[in-house]
Amino acid sequence: MEKLRIIGFSKLTPLEDALDKLYSIIQVISAEEIEIKDALNRILADDIISEKDIPHFDRSAMDGYAIKAKDSFGASPKNPKKVKLVGIIEIGEFTKLEINKGEAVRISTGALVPENSDAVIKIEDTEIENDLINLYTSLVPGKNISMRGEDIKKGTHVLSKGTELKAEHIALLTSLGFNKIKVRIKPKISIFSSGDELLEPGDNLKPGKIYNSNTPMISALVNLYGGVVLRGETVKDNKDAIKKILLETEKDSNVIIFTGGTSVGTKDYLPEIINELGKVLTHGIAMRPGSPVLLGLINNTLIFCLPGTPVAAYVSFLKIAGPAIRKRLGCSILDPRIEVAAIINKDVPVSGLGILHYLRVKVEKDKNNFIANPIKLKGSGVISSLTTSDGIIEIPPNQEGLKKGETVIVKLFPK
Amino acid sequence: MEKLRIIGFSKLTPLEDALDKLYSIIQVISAEEIEIKDALNRILADDIISEKDIPHFDRSAMDGYAIKAKDSFGASPKNPKKVKLVGIIEIGEFTKLEINKGEAVRISTGALVPENSDAVIKIEDTEIENDLINLYTSLVPGKNISMRGEDIKKGTHVLSKGTELKAEHIALLTSLGFNKIKVRIKPKISIFSSGDELLEPGDNLKPGKIYNSNTPMISALVNLYGGVVLRGETVKDNKDAIKKILLETEKDSNVIIFTGGTSVGTKDYLPEIINELGKVLTHGIAMRPGSPVLLGLINNTLIFCLPGTPVAAYVSFLKIAGPAIRKRLGCSILDPRIEVAAIINKDVPVSGLGILHYLRVKVEKDKNNFIANPIKLKGSGVISSLTTSDGIIEIPPNQEGLKKGETVIVKLFPK
Repeated sequence: MEKLRIIGFSKLTPLEDALDKLYSIIQVISAEEIEIKDALNRILADDIISEKDIPHFDRSAMDGYAIKAKDSFGASPKNPKKVKLVGIIEIGEFTKLEINKGEAVRISTGALVPENSDAVIKIEDTEIENDLINLYTSLVPGKNISMRGEDIKKGTHVLSKGTELKAEHIALLTSLGFNKIKVRIKPKISIFSSGDELLEPGDNLKPGKIYNSNTPMISALVNLYGGVVLRGETVKDNKDAIKKILLETEKDSNVIIFTGGTSVGTKDYLPEIINELGKVLTHGIAMRPGSPVLLGLINNTLIFCLPGTPVAAYVSFLKIAGPAIRKRLGCSILDPRIEVAAIINKDVPVSGLGILHYLRVKVEKDKNNFIANPIKLKGSGVISSLTTSDGIIEIPPNQEGLKKGETVIVKLFPK
Repeated sequence: MEKLRIIGFSKLTPLEDALDKLYSIIQVISAEEIEIKDALNRILADDIISEKDIPHFDRSAMDGYAIKAKDSFGASPKNPKKVKLVGIIEIGEFTKLEINKGEAVRISTGALVPENSDAVIKIEDTEIENDLINLYTSLVPGKNISMRGEDIKKGTHVLSKGTELKAEHIALLTSLGFNKIKVRIKPKISIFSSGDELLEPGDNLKPGKIYNSNTPMISALVNLYGGVVLRGETVKDNKDAIKKILLETEKDSNVIIFTGGTSVGTKDYLPEIINELGKVLTHGIAMRPGSPVLLGLINNTLIFCLPGTPVAAYVSFLKIAGPAIRKRLGCSILDPRIEVAAIINKDVPVSGLGILHYLRVKVEKDKNNFIANPIKLKGSGVISSLTTSDGIIEIPPNQEGLKKGETVIVKLFPK
């Protein structure tokens, strides 16, 4: 480790420090108005205050009869009370129908309750003969009525800006009468992988070469994290080619993500080029995998140079580039991964204190417990270690490892 | 309950029985070939067997020198061994370069290891003076080399049909050389909400009326579950209108979802119409909310009639319509919701044994534990109970409720 620092990086920055520095320069992207039907997974730009009471009128919560509660007092199956049917209110109907003492109105779930009725008796608690209704139970006033404003009172803060809109938020916004909504514009993201060893899909495989799997992988993650992919390409490991593509792309991209070309190999030009065109914010982060990450800025475009090995690229996207995209989107939750508590079923020693370690695990359910099985690792290039695992345990820099049987938090891979 | 059965349903079917019957008639939809870059969230149609060794050649796992391990035996910082630099292998380069005893080749991470070299020494474990390299550590044969086939051997079953493709699967498939892939066609789904009380977004709100929030909510869920929305509309609660739209839509929809119109109110035509045009599979399911669900079939189109109250519609989508869509897609996991174990912080009595109950909860993290807080309920129409909760606990029909402090499984809302 010490030697690597001397050769490659002036020092490895703790992840938290790197993120603090990064987040401090990220501004929230502008908003656009879209139709509510297109709002799934978009990020809400404004706080939402209800301008209406929901429900907007006293609604029946049951199919039955709207009555005056008093008329049911003392009713039981053995001693039914009687009221007279004087009308019917269909769902969706607006009526000024009123009832007097001893009267009832047939009403459906969701229908407007007549002005001076104060309870609804369920149809199964009644029997009707001609226009006379037997009430078999006694109701308290308010029974089976959803009162105006019971769900949401006018003026209530119902959703906060930065919320990622899901089906239930869309339902809520629609029920408040919204048909358009302001959300954050999707950041435009260009993705490049550099390396003379990289083949495009469909090329013939030759010794020494590998397929570029990072560009499609990072593109998928960018989509999951709320960005839109402008370009996704392979670039030769050539200083002029990399410089040209950076200059071309930074104009219309909010974010550029490179994989490869940041380590201390023989042909790693990226740090030099970014220093020349803009500014290197951080190079070298104290985490494993992922230590060669470089964060930079060219004009207003954020540059992420992630390691070329797929697992390291994946993990550093989840920890750094992904949350930065969501910061740009104004998301209230920067890391969208779901956490589960699980019991680890093996001792896991870690080498190298001072480094944040990411452990890939498969999570299995055993009755009401979850068990985390560490995946046997063969290096950070091994993509199958991702497809055979479900998530990652983070072992903090100050911790020596994990003990079999302890409860750990697993961050599941983003879905 | 008994009364409701008598009036509305011949009997309430247990959920498992209803699902068994439903699944038994669902056939997996056909497949189509798409580009791998468009494969996010699609369902893999075939098992994938690797036709290649990955890596495809012996690769260096480090930046350093390829040597014969024997030449390093006994080396230490105090007693370095010396080898001679005879060449360099760039990443991506194919070379027939061989090394002899006492020789080394400069090599980058990911580059092809020369034929008769059997170890790579990390650059930080060496020092070079002119063309003589001091080795400061002793290596076992194979050290720092990813052997051909180490990640995936040719002939290995790497992914199963029915997998929902995420970033990591896309990376794996690309690394195997795929640029196109066979996935299931997205089922075409039409969504209608019936009710004379329903307003379209943008309409003026009037007493007795509410906005149709179910169509946009179910549309969002259909997208999350892998379907594509053909139509999403409000329909008048009128027998002819409903019949006409069903006949029109069943021709080009794989699935039709209705909300509303299935209960025992005064104007619920759907059961009658579906019986006339096709077949009612199940009407009335022993769960709460969600009991008025109707499952039907018109020719080959699956019909789901979900309750009109938004929470009941939401829950019955998650439990019935959503998994059926994924069955049609051939998904290996029909219910994609993530489960977490949590401790319930209140006693929860349930009324009505014999009924599966769904309890909405908010999940909070307390160190390495998760706490489930039941959401105060005001009925199944209350959409805010969904936006303020994170998931659902299922209380089985034979269980009387939950005791404070017990561990429960929470199924998180789909994201």
